[in-house]
Amino acid sequence: MQRNLTRAVCALFLVMGICSAQPHPLDGLSTAEYWVAYDVLQQAGHAGPEGFFASVLLREPPKNLVLNWKEGSATPREADVVMFEKGKTFEARVDLAARKLSSWRELKDVQAPFLGSEIFGSDEVIKKDQRVIEALKKRGLTDLNAVQCIVLPESYVAVPEQNTQRIGFGSCSEQHGSYHSWGRSIEGLTLQMDMVTKTILKVVDTEVVPVSKGGVNYEEIPERARPGTTPIAISQPMGASFQIKDGEVSWQNWHFRFRIDPRVGPVLNLVRFEDGGRMRSVMYEGSLSELYVPYMDPTNGWNSRVFIDAGEFYSGVGLLKPLRPGLDCPANAAYFDGLSAGEKGAPKIWPQVLCLFERAGSDPAWRHFEENIVHGRPSRELVLRSAAVIGNYDYLMDWRFQQDGAIDVAVGATGVIETKISAQKNAAGHPMEKSAPVDFGQFVADNTIGVNHDHFFSFRLDLDVDGVDNSFMADRMVQQLLPSDPMRKSIWAVKHTIAAREQDAIMDIHLETPSMWMFINPNVKGPLGYPTGYEIMPGVTAKSLLSPDDLPQKLGAFSEHQFWVTPNDPTQRYAAGVYPTSSKATDGIAVWTKANRPIENTDLVGWYTLGFHHMPRVEDWPVMPTMWHSFQIRPFNFFGANPVLDLPR
Amino acid sequence: MQRNLTRAVCALFLVMGICSAQPHPLDGLSTAEYWVAYDVLQQAGHAGPEGFFASVLLREPPKNLVLNWKEGSATPREADVVMFEKGKTFEARVDLAARKLSSWRELKDVQAPFLGSEIFGSDEVIKKDQRVIEALKKRGLTDLNAVQCIVLPESYVAVPEQNTQRIGFGSCSEQHGSYHSWGRSIEGLTLQMDMVTKTILKVVDTEVVPVSKGGVNYEEIPERARPGTTPIAISQPMGASFQIKDGEVSWQNWHFRFRIDPRVGPVLNLVRFEDGGRMRSVMYEGSLSELYVPYMDPTNGWNSRVFIDAGEFYSGVGLLKPLRPGLDCPANAAYFDGLSAGEKGAPKIWPQVLCLFERAGSDPAWRHFEENIVHGRPSRELVLRSAAVIGNYDYLMDWRFQQDGAIDVAVGATGVIETKISAQKNAAGHPMEKSAPVDFGQFVADNTIGVNHDHFFSFRLDLDVDGVDNSFMADRMVQQLLPSDPMRKSIWAVKHTIAAREQDAIMDIHLETPSMWMFINPNVKGPLGYPTGYEIMPGVTAKSLLSPDDLPQKLGAFSEHQFWVTPNDPTQRYAAGVYPTSSKATDGIAVWTKANRPIENTDLVGWYTLGFHHMPRVEDWPVMPTMWHSFQIRPFNFFGANPVLDLPR
Repeated sequence: MQRNLTRAVCALFLVMGICSAQPHPLDGLSTAEYWVAYDVLQQAGHAGPEGFFASVLLREPPKNLVLNWKEGSATPREADVVMFEKGKTFEARVDLAARKLSSWRELKDVQAPFLGSEIFGSDEVIKKDQRVIEALKKRGLTDLNAVQCIVLPESYVAVPEQNTQRIGFGSCSEQHGSYHSWGRSIEGLTLQMDMVTKTILKVVDTEVVPVSKGGVNYEEIPERARPGTTPIAISQPMGASFQIKDGEVSWQNWHFRFRIDPRVGPVLNLVRFEDGGRMRSVMYEGSLSELYVPYMDPTNGWNSRVFIDAGEFYSGVGLLKPLRPGLDCPANAAYFDGLSAGEKGAPKIWPQVLCLFERAGSDPAWRHFEENIVHGRPSRELVLRSAAVIGNYDYLMDWRFQQDGAIDVAVGATGVIETKISAQKNAAGHPMEKSAPVDFGQFVADNTIGVNHDHFFSFRLDLDVDGVDNSFMADRMVQQLLPSDPMRKSIWAVKHTIAAREQDAIMDIHLETPSMWMFINPNVKGPLGYPTGYEIMPGVTAKSLLSPDDLPQKLGAFSEHQFWVTPNDPTQRYAAGVYPTSSKATDGIAVWTKANRPIENTDLVGWYTLGFHHMPRVEDWPVMPTMWHSFQIRPFNFFGANPVLDLPR
Repeated sequence: MQRNLTRAVCALFLVMGICSAQPHPLDGLSTAEYWVAYDVLQQAGHAGPEGFFASVLLREPPKNLVLNWKEGSATPREADVVMFEKGKTFEARVDLAARKLSSWRELKDVQAPFLGSEIFGSDEVIKKDQRVIEALKKRGLTDLNAVQCIVLPESYVAVPEQNTQRIGFGSCSEQHGSYHSWGRSIEGLTLQMDMVTKTILKVVDTEVVPVSKGGVNYEEIPERARPGTTPIAISQPMGASFQIKDGEVSWQNWHFRFRIDPRVGPVLNLVRFEDGGRMRSVMYEGSLSELYVPYMDPTNGWNSRVFIDAGEFYSGVGLLKPLRPGLDCPANAAYFDGLSAGEKGAPKIWPQVLCLFERAGSDPAWRHFEENIVHGRPSRELVLRSAAVIGNYDYLMDWRFQQDGAIDVAVGATGVIETKISAQKNAAGHPMEKSAPVDFGQFVADNTIGVNHDHFFSFRLDLDVDGVDNSFMADRMVQQLLPSDPMRKSIWAVKHTIAAREQDAIMDIHLETPSMWMFINPNVKGPLGYPTGYEIMPGVTAKSLLSPDDLPQKLGAFSEHQFWVTPNDPTQRYAAGVYPTSSKATDGIAVWTKANRPIENTDLVGWYTLGFHHMPRVEDWPVMPTMWHSFQIRPFNFFGANPVLDLPR
């Protein structure tokens, strides 16, 4: 009775991962657990005044342990911690349940992710450097109150100093006349800083460009109601249709768990579909894995802008950012908070970083017009949404569960594009005409160039279709000539190919040679004799155009193909490696798959690359309209028929 | 005063194209006008008892006339009519305003579209044919009440008889035990019929396959409420935000007209965006142009299944099909009716074939998180939706207007897939394994194979960006090596290329060589000096895999490329030609563009191909879940900044 009461009281909090009564093995770390990690490291002498917590993440238990875990049995709980002290990076493994340090080792050759205090805390040092002061003076900037300087990490080794030192790349902006500093970069002036000694190693000043005075104050523009606009109300007066019990979400035959991971955002687990009373496994885990954003301007200060956003910035900046009710999620949404460790180990709570809501009413699940009657069923979907904001860019990240067993994964990009200030006012008199010279960006405002860049997202999809062991099948559509057919000369047919090894499962999209990508369970047959399966159906995406031997591209090599498959290895979670800061690209999916491991009838992970090139347009300034990209995971011969036939009218 | 009153009373009806007071030049034909066309042809002796109206469509006035037309001035009104009489096809042009026949000529070498009475009216003749009776008896079918036979036109010349005769391709199905006949085809038995003499020229019986008894009664499946489902209400208590005045829709700075064309469905016209008090032209006209659906099974009865659905079936079957409130469109939708001519010339009204509604509330138009505050504006969109149903397939067709100047065009495919009955029960014991033989379809139920096929939609987009004369620009992203850069080896840059002639503007999607497709106005520069433009941004699409020399593929050749540009020629409206029935592919976009006409700074039309391959899955039976595909038309350097910055909070 006592225990049940505790659980009932606790149920609400479990969702947020902040109840320590008896967490599920895949719950996010609770406040109490963050403090256990702190205490263990502090008591071991590793959290002194010069020690910083660069990363504290749940270490997932092995899959078999999770799948066999029963409520009431002991829950394995561990944390992976990265500590940074006096230029050295340490990796710790903390057994939270036993309150003990399982391992501690110094890592050579990698850099801990930059701390927020490193990125934002160098402003004063920089503005006291005589070379910087002189450079600013050349630009007419003598009052430095409105000048802000930051240092950013570099994902790859761009300069030799990174081989032995922790190097930050500094630049400044000037915000006089504005309430923020985007669009006000001070061009031509960059610096390199030793982050341990806080000394500026080098100041580079290539060209003096006047600071722009263009309008960037997007929030001060007067509101202008569109004539005749009437309110649209969405309400769910009897409450939400989804239930959450002990951290498990149930909705329209779907069952799943989620936690909010400080590095990759929402992590979905144990995604199952109830089919005629049977709980059938679809996906053990799904989440973002990495984010790669290379910029395309070869000038000083821009040529080094290649971001591995998730892995580089989760410590200093963080992907967990609040959602605004009524703007980011509709009136019927429920919200969830997240936790992450601060630099000194104390957890910080992030309010409303995830919302869950149903959308309904305007599209049919299916319909058919026959004999003058329209038959069909209305549909609804469940959206799990978060927002990743890495400096200027805002990415809305959706997992949209459909009633028919499909999951849409979508990314909505908005926020502020990165701009370069130009001495040239605009493109007038520089027409885009035949044989015009190539461009690295376009003017989006006077003296302001939106610099070309790419966005590549790697999604890690640990599908377990009807069980842990799956195979990857590519169904290729191939032209068949029909030499003896009197009516047709050609047709396409499907060739089913099972990928034996990792290299066989590297998929590229070509309209000339289309294929369908499926995770099938060769051990489970559906009623018609086909192996049960789930298809990964690509959406609009892009491939990197950079040279494969370019070091930043080696790090973001997941952008070279649209899909990859690996055998499940718990140490391989991040497509650009665990430590992308100043990385030599010795970790990551392109490295792992070189081993060409067997992938038949075993525990597999799929890696989908969602990418888009971005040549900014005037309309993207000063904040860009949201642009969505998506892909779908959908049942393929998983059910015995259309699973939404029996929906209520 | 009198006139104003008439207009006011008439305003409501004008939208539906059934008010004859003073129509806009681009309004659909009214009931009165259909009867004028009838009267003129009847009085000229062309609408006798053996004459049939195979097509009656608005003939659009020349663009300059429309653009210069003012309310109160004379409205040019004409109809294009195709008459079919005793095997002959005639083309008439009727001046509706003057009530006279402008031209009348017999067309050799083309076939009028099949009439509904030809498709469905041959059942009795077929079932009296001794060869058919014998063939049915071999299958155990002696009671023919439950057997239904139809004849379909063939888009291309599959047999030599089509060169001189009007040939229908007949087949039968048996619906005993069901309330419809989809999924109950009688395999192996086909026939060819002379449609003029109604004689069966040939009966082909290649194999006896038992008629399937599998379940197809999708509407009889008991409803099963998902546990915990609560209602979601969408309401717009103060009414819609869009206004319609004299047939023009205004919504959130957008202005446009539409008519419902019996051949291609909704036709949008004079699409303009009000920008700071200026009415700026975006698109003169946008509509579906054609639909090509080739099937991929080489056996008798299937090898001839290649449909040019819009052009072949609008007369006999028709794209205008009703929408069901609450299923196809939400509670706040408004509905519009359509008109089309019946076989004997009398117009038929189609209720609720188009709906218009706003969707709002769950996605931000833009957002940015800065200094612990989320900034942003909620968005809404206006959806103009229709449903095309050609026999088994249902296509929802959306034009979705965004507040930021973009238009999403989307197709949602649902309905019943075409199935072939198989003697083999299912795939059990026929595993899909390495080096499995190729497939032409997959089992979707016992004895029932979903046959592989493609869907290709050609959209005709007469963009007029800031005026009639535009150029087509492809912005190509090309790799640049940086031999002297210390930090990077490569980057991509943009090369702007203006297409001089039609062949330069044929666009194919390759991830290795991406490009952005734009209509620009070289005569109008935006505030930053760029020509104003609109981009056509492709969505997920496909390319035909058939051999280009295959006659059906020649007819559906628009499926070989993803975008085409032509100079505007009012006789070139249909991507597979005006008369696709038994066509030799002498008309259509692949033929026109061989002329390689100049396309710089002139009136242009863009043709977007939206395609997808469809290998059916078990979940697609007996009705398939709706699958959406889309593309976007969006402003590119058209505005001076993000046009939704000033939206109300």
